[in-house]
Amino acid sequence: MIALLQQLTQFLPKDSVLLTDEAVRPYECDGLSAYRERPAAVVLPNTLDEVQQVLKFCYQHKIPVVARGAGTGLSGGALPHKAGVLLSLAKFKRILAIDPKSRTARVETGVRNLAISQAVAPFGLYYAPDPSSQVACTIGGNVAENSGGVHCLKYGLTVHNILEVKMFTMAGELLTIGSAAYDSAGYDLLALITGSEGLLGVVVEVTVRLLPKPEQAQVLMAAFDDVIKAGSAVAEIIAQGIIPAGLEMMDNAAIRAAEDFVKAGYPVEAATILLCELDGNAEEVEHQIGQVNQILRQAGATEIRQAVDEQQRLQFWAGRKAAFPAVGRISPDYYCMDGTIPRKHLATVLGRIAELSQQYGLVVANVFHAGDGNLHPLILFDANKAGQLEKAEALGGEILELCVAVGGTITGEHGVGMEKINQMCVQFNSLELTQFHALKKAFDPDGLLNPDKAIPTLHRCAEFGKLHVHHGELPFPELERF
Amino acid sequence: MIALLQQLTQFLPKDSVLLTDEAVRPYECDGLSAYRERPAAVVLPNTLDEVQQVLKFCYQHKIPVVARGAGTGLSGGALPHKAGVLLSLAKFKRILAIDPKSRTARVETGVRNLAISQAVAPFGLYYAPDPSSQVACTIGGNVAENSGGVHCLKYGLTVHNILEVKMFTMAGELLTIGSAAYDSAGYDLLALITGSEGLLGVVVEVTVRLLPKPEQAQVLMAAFDDVIKAGSAVAEIIAQGIIPAGLEMMDNAAIRAAEDFVKAGYPVEAATILLCELDGNAEEVEHQIGQVNQILRQAGATEIRQAVDEQQRLQFWAGRKAAFPAVGRISPDYYCMDGTIPRKHLATVLGRIAELSQQYGLVVANVFHAGDGNLHPLILFDANKAGQLEKAEALGGEILELCVAVGGTITGEHGVGMEKINQMCVQFNSLELTQFHALKKAFDPDGLLNPDKAIPTLHRCAEFGKLHVHHGELPFPELERF
Repeated sequence: MIALLQQLTQFLPKDSVLLTDEAVRPYECDGLSAYRERPAAVVLPNTLDEVQQVLKFCYQHKIPVVARGAGTGLSGGALPHKAGVLLSLAKFKRILAIDPKSRTARVETGVRNLAISQAVAPFGLYYAPDPSSQVACTIGGNVAENSGGVHCLKYGLTVHNILEVKMFTMAGELLTIGSAAYDSAGYDLLALITGSEGLLGVVVEVTVRLLPKPEQAQVLMAAFDDVIKAGSAVAEIIAQGIIPAGLEMMDNAAIRAAEDFVKAGYPVEAATILLCELDGNAEEVEHQIGQVNQILRQAGATEIRQAVDEQQRLQFWAGRKAAFPAVGRISPDYYCMDGTIPRKHLATVLGRIAELSQQYGLVVANVFHAGDGNLHPLILFDANKAGQLEKAEALGGEILELCVAVGGTITGEHGVGMEKINQMCVQFNSLELTQFHALKKAFDPDGLLNPDKAIPTLHRCAEFGKLHVHHGELPFPELERF
Repeated sequence: MIALLQQLTQFLPKDSVLLTDEAVRPYECDGLSAYRERPAAVVLPNTLDEVQQVLKFCYQHKIPVVARGAGTGLSGGALPHKAGVLLSLAKFKRILAIDPKSRTARVETGVRNLAISQAVAPFGLYYAPDPSSQVACTIGGNVAENSGGVHCLKYGLTVHNILEVKMFTMAGELLTIGSAAYDSAGYDLLALITGSEGLLGVVVEVTVRLLPKPEQAQVLMAAFDDVIKAGSAVAEIIAQGIIPAGLEMMDNAAIRAAEDFVKAGYPVEAATILLCELDGNAEEVEHQIGQVNQILRQAGATEIRQAVDEQQRLQFWAGRKAAFPAVGRISPDYYCMDGTIPRKHLATVLGRIAELSQQYGLVVANVFHAGDGNLHPLILFDANKAGQLEKAEALGGEILELCVAVGGTITGEHGVGMEKINQMCVQFNSLELTQFHALKKAFDPDGLLNPDKAIPTLHRCAEFGKLHVHHGELPFPELERF
């Protein structure tokens, strides 16, 4: 194997091929450190030509390939294959073109999410999807995971903000997918590739849509003594046709952790807080702030505060954005879940999570994108205490199955990767999984790209043995069907 | 063959199977009457179970199947196969569920587009995509073609307004695709199926998103003596971050035809008119009307009129919506094209179309969704004059190739069908077409669903013999590259 992999230096500079155990160690996991694996080799190509040669070589010799951006993923999607090549795209950092008139930018796959917005800022533009990891994560990784962020309620996920990608197939063929126009002929491969977690191809270039920076942004923070009241406020905001730029919810455990960490000014006694950001032109924002204020009051908010200036607005958000590390400070370990549910089941699902938390004896802090029903329950545990990791994983699995049961899905924006592959058996039936495998074969007949991730084999599902509960065949009779 | 097809009556009521030449004739074409073909049989199943049995039967006997909604398509996508079964879904007309709280409706595939908005109107909601054929066209057909309409600039195409579909594969297996939640795990089959022109499966149920009706809508009509000025007004409206609910452009030939037909109140001397609709709450609309007014004035509009009341607003739109039949009144025949280009090339492309019109000696009237660059050039001709049909087709082909050359695509919302299958060879290279065929095989290995449509064989492209001009390898040096 090593002798074979050493042949990679025939078309890559020597220092772009890492083969020693020591050299490949930094690549052994992504942001989800619970899973670790060392690849047989890491390659760091410098040109598209080198990427193509690596792929052709691996295709010919049937060597698995896992592509990697910044490695900030949270589901083990970039976990290396021990008999495979880890293909790092870190060197593809150039912004190739900015077209302020068409409001697009064409960038290489390794460009960081935030770097796009920084580069186009002089034109008054920005790139809307803003995952929490946006300082570090790359646009190629964003495409692989169909990343969202606080603003995706109003501005959409990655799939809604890209126009065209250039992608290598496993055989090393370069495809151009999508177009600069509003729609494209042929099958919609752009949406298919987006969120496919590196199983269908290696994206090397992305043309993104840019948006003009809104004239104004304003945020309201509301406290509630009851999560159901907060949930109904969310429903009413949306029902009135208001689309906030961000609509986030945190429960008491998350509020306390965040306040303790960054002093965001949150009321630590509140059961729940809602953060609602509105953006647009000044009149529009002022009008909507008035509407939202009234809705929050009517829903029974115990306190409503409007950021008095830009500094306070950023402070309100700082607490939310630091919620994960803040929870990390109060617990030796935490397990961040990522399920999405139809908004109307928020209160029911939160109630059930509280029950499960008691049952497992593990604290769960809830932080989530309330506007689009994307939950991030953080399960607190201590991996050094025997059995706690397994308990946390089991509790996490139950939460994901609960999301499916109310008509939701096991992932909002973090992807399936390794982490949630068993829960895919709950979400999809064997016909649907078979269709996924057929589709994978159409791009990668030998199954070499990112093997064993995202789509479970039927064999694995049979072993996992959980019932398929697709779309609301509810195991919990108390939940109303969607 | 007939003996075999008669077996269909084993699982369908007798009057749901049409076999005589006379009985199948009404199904020989869709809205594009230039292509006609009679199917071997027409079936009109009444239940999903019957649809499944028809598909299983045809799959077993390798009989081609073409699904059909209302038959209003404009690219021959529902053209029958002469040795195949035409599967009419006309009887699936039930609205299955309306959920005003989640703002969704679940409907059968044969429900008419407008019937959805009518059914949900009592809840203050509507379904946004509004193709011109919305009175007649079905939601299943909308999914097959990824239909747009006047409002898609602001509210998106069909793919942006549906959440879940139930679909039979050619083998008769029922898949549920998508979910009621914001995102879904697994490959994004929902986007893949949408716009796949009936080649991947037969959609039988659709869950659509609904939107609250805007508080107010207002329209401005502006006249220009020069199409370049109108084009720059469009660019400036978008550049200022205004997203009109509709932004439509008509040239002099289209203005005269429409005015003559419906007396919309258009200035018949104008080179071009722009219709710009703004919707939202009253303050927002008023503010934006002011902004747009200023932009239009600065761009050199010779006349700007704001609809004084709802009746005049509808009258302004009546002219635009009747443009196709209006042109039909002044010419024995017309050929409606549907290409999409990056907005910034509007003026250049219109100039080139004018040259081509002169060169071919055929009048072209231009009507289009200016906001999203979706052109509908109408080529006027007389099929009774020898050679004119061929001339019109050749001119149409050149216009589509022009769209590809500037970085656009050969279809905005009408689909490829039979009509534009040769131009697919211009838009995609052989690698990309091969990928499309592999993907088709993953759903329909025997190629029985809607054969010979939408995706050309490599053999066909070799015969067509036109150069692939993907993404801006320009045959016209005077056009700037995207």
